Amino acid sequence: LRRAGLGLLGFGTVGRALANLVVEDRSRLERDVGVHFALVAVGNRGVARKRAEWSGGAPPRFTEDLESVVDDPDVSIVVELLGGLEPAGALVARALAAGKSVVTANKLLLAERGSELAALARMHGAGLGVEASVAGGIPILRALRESLAGDALLSVGGILNGTCNFILSGMEKTGRSYAEMLADAQRLGYAEADPSADVLGGDAACKLTLLARMAFGQEVALRDVAKEGITHLMPCDFVYAKALGRTLKQLATCAALPDGRLLLGVRTHLVAGHALLAKLEGPFNAVRVVARRAGELVFTGRGAGGDPTAVAVLSDVLELARAVRPEVPPFGFESLAPRRLAGPEDFVAPFALRFVVRDRPGIIAEIARCLAEHEVNIDAVLQEPFGEKSALPFVMTVEPIAEARLLGALQAIRELPFHAEEPAAFPMTS
Amino acid sequence: LRRAGLGLLGFGTVGRALANLVVEDRSRLERDVGVHFALVAVGNRGVARKRAEWSGGAPPRFTEDLESVVDDPDVSIVVELLGGLEPAGALVARALAAGKSVVTANKLLLAERGSELAALARMHGAGLGVEASVAGGIPILRALRESLAGDALLSVGGILNGTCNFILSGMEKTGRSYAEMLADAQRLGYAEADPSADVLGGDAACKLTLLARMAFGQEVALRDVAKEGITHLMPCDFVYAKALGRTLKQLATCAALPDGRLLLGVRTHLVAGHALLAKLEGPFNAVRVVARRAGELVFTGRGAGGDPTAVAVLSDVLELARAVRPEVPPFGFESLAPRRLAGPEDFVAPFALRFVVRDRPGIIAEIARCLAEHEVNIDAVLQEPFGEKSALPFVMTVEPIAEARLLGALQAIRELPFHAEEPAAFPMTS
Repeated sequence: LRRAGLGLLGFGTVGRALANLVVEDRSRLERDVGVHFALVAVGNRGVARKRAEWSGGAPPRFTEDLESVVDDPDVSIVVELLGGLEPAGALVARALAAGKSVVTANKLLLAERGSELAALARMHGAGLGVEASVAGGIPILRALRESLAGDALLSVGGILNGTCNFILSGMEKTGRSYAEMLADAQRLGYAEADPSADVLGGDAACKLTLLARMAFGQEVALRDVAKEGITHLMPCDFVYAKALGRTLKQLATCAALPDGRLLLGVRTHLVAGHALLAKLEGPFNAVRVVARRAGELVFTGRGAGGDPTAVAVLSDVLELARAVRPEVPPFGFESLAPRRLAGPEDFVAPFALRFVVRDRPGIIAEIARCLAEHEVNIDAVLQEPFGEKSALPFVMTVEPIAEARLLGALQAIRELPFHAEEPAAFPMTS
Repeated sequence: LRRAGLGLLGFGTVGRALANLVVEDRSRLERDVGVHFALVAVGNRGVARKRAEWSGGAPPRFTEDLESVVDDPDVSIVVELLGGLEPAGALVARALAAGKSVVTANKLLLAERGSELAALARMHGAGLGVEASVAGGIPILRALRESLAGDALLSVGGILNGTCNFILSGMEKTGRSYAEMLADAQRLGYAEADPSADVLGGDAACKLTLLARMAFGQEVALRDVAKEGITHLMPCDFVYAKALGRTLKQLATCAALPDGRLLLGVRTHLVAGHALLAKLEGPFNAVRVVARRAGELVFTGRGAGGDPTAVAVLSDVLELARAVRPEVPPFGFESLAPRRLAGPEDFVAPFALRFVVRDRPGIIAEIARCLAEHEVNIDAVLQEPFGEKSALPFVMTVEPIAEARLLGALQAIRELPFHAEEPAAFPMTS
């Protein structure tokens, strides 16, 4: 039986779930996978408390000296679950430089330093497992790296933030406000006390960066992703969405234009009601891949949480432990081509524009004039019978238009004096 | 650059798609994957016609002598796309015995002889790639084998036959009859001239056999799957499904009971309208996996067709070509435990029973008496205002009951004299 000594950096939700999995399922793993796993050392702050939480028989060595976990001669695979750039980055680099394979769920670290760490891994003959860094329990990176390796990809993306999806599908279902649903998400543990990474789109943008590198082999950086939060959504938006036969979803999207440039964004889309992604409710993730030959694939599952993420971490640990020699660093994190980016002038879609105005005559005419001046063609005007004279919501849909031109028109409209809320624009996609 | 010489057995839709892929994308594959592929030989009947179809530069050796493809010293990987048990089985065995790796999309061969072929592969140090055998372009076997290897599975299954899904979702959408939708499917190339393997459930049962072996490591055989076709479905069934907030879907399901026994079936289910699988329209597949820790995962995509299947075949070819030594035969095809099966006495669900009767007084009372005698509790009776006196459809829903007991009741009801059509029973699941 092959033996793998694990060193765990970080003993929070995912670390505990992974430790439970390795301890409880040891005999099943030995039988099915042919590897004997030993959890050798666990590094975390507040180690006395963490040690007290241990319930799985003989405990591993608990320590606050994180470097000692990496340096432990019995540790052959380091699992980094600290999150954040430091000290995680230094510890991962230290392990790789010592020829030890690393498995990490740290999307921020990979988005910022993925290529450098992959090169370090290759130089020292170590492996680097990253499956858990995107969409938790959904095995999307392995699908891109192995299953679709023979195909050419056209687009990748989807619902990458479960917190946003919980809030949006809850607003749709209950008619409640963003603030109420956010409070619910926080109460249920789906959102942090400071939810900004989730609700402002940064988390989804980070995952999209990694997906885009894997899928298209370009050096995409976090700052290349145009992002927009969900904090401005109002209950009326869901009423109009329904009237349009659509649903509001935060989608992270990366599409390759025919000339090879990538169009990257995190936005709230009005998704067609018949689309699979429109049906996904609650704190789940869905990744949609369109490949030239394989067509459209959709993968859904739990994008976060201790147990699903631990299963993804373990899948990398198993692959590294079974490998005759550690796999070369995963496809998409080294030898990347320079990125070639498209911008808002390349993002063309029909949009729905939502305005909330103080009722007075001639408003639609003024907006229509602004749109016409920017050559934006109105398709329809929807006004549901609700709202008050001081804050009357209505929606205009416009024919397919480049986002850049639409933003110009909206800039002019925004300066008109009758708005009770900031205007919002949602692309309508399928 | 590593070199891989491919020998192709069968040059139909998938074979041609694979050849196109390898030829057209040769430079991309060399760059991304680091392997130079040469299509060395193609074996098929009517070789003059097949050779005439070649359009990709210097043609490979075309031959009707299939053994010569396997024996060609330049062929290191044999791709078997003949289908059926023979001569495919003898050729695959011949290749493996010579130490050549084999990639096959042949689900019937794997269902009947998978374990034997896997053992042969191991004995001779050859690899055996089977990804394309289940759900075409959906990378489900690799997900089970690698991504979920660290988890314990609870159930696996889904919509495994795209032809049935095309017919059922078409009946739902258009109100047309089974026969009309089948004719449509045949016209569009989604169904064969003899559609029985698809519409009677055999194709889905075969795929389920392979999935069940992979997921649960038991020696499941094709005959262990209880199967039912879709040929008895009537337009009224979709009207009642809608009234129940549900959709009719052919689902292949394999669930592990707490005692480890497997419950296997291919049936038409009344799926809850909010379930993702209820939303899948057209000739697509969806595989649903429930794992103890990772939770529910759903994978959707194209389950058939030349290009998607060729991408799946190529993913195995790439894995074998890149491997330092061929992977051991895939998890789930050897060292299987004896199967332990559950039966209709273990399949418990609420059911909807559809009757079409010649109208006369007291029918519901007679049916209710039969059900009561078998201790089946009626939940509700639905009768939509359509049908004629000579063929009046209605539906009874019953509380959760073991299928075995329900079948007993239905046997008695079937003997009553007022039926205009065979009664039908659909489990209601989510």
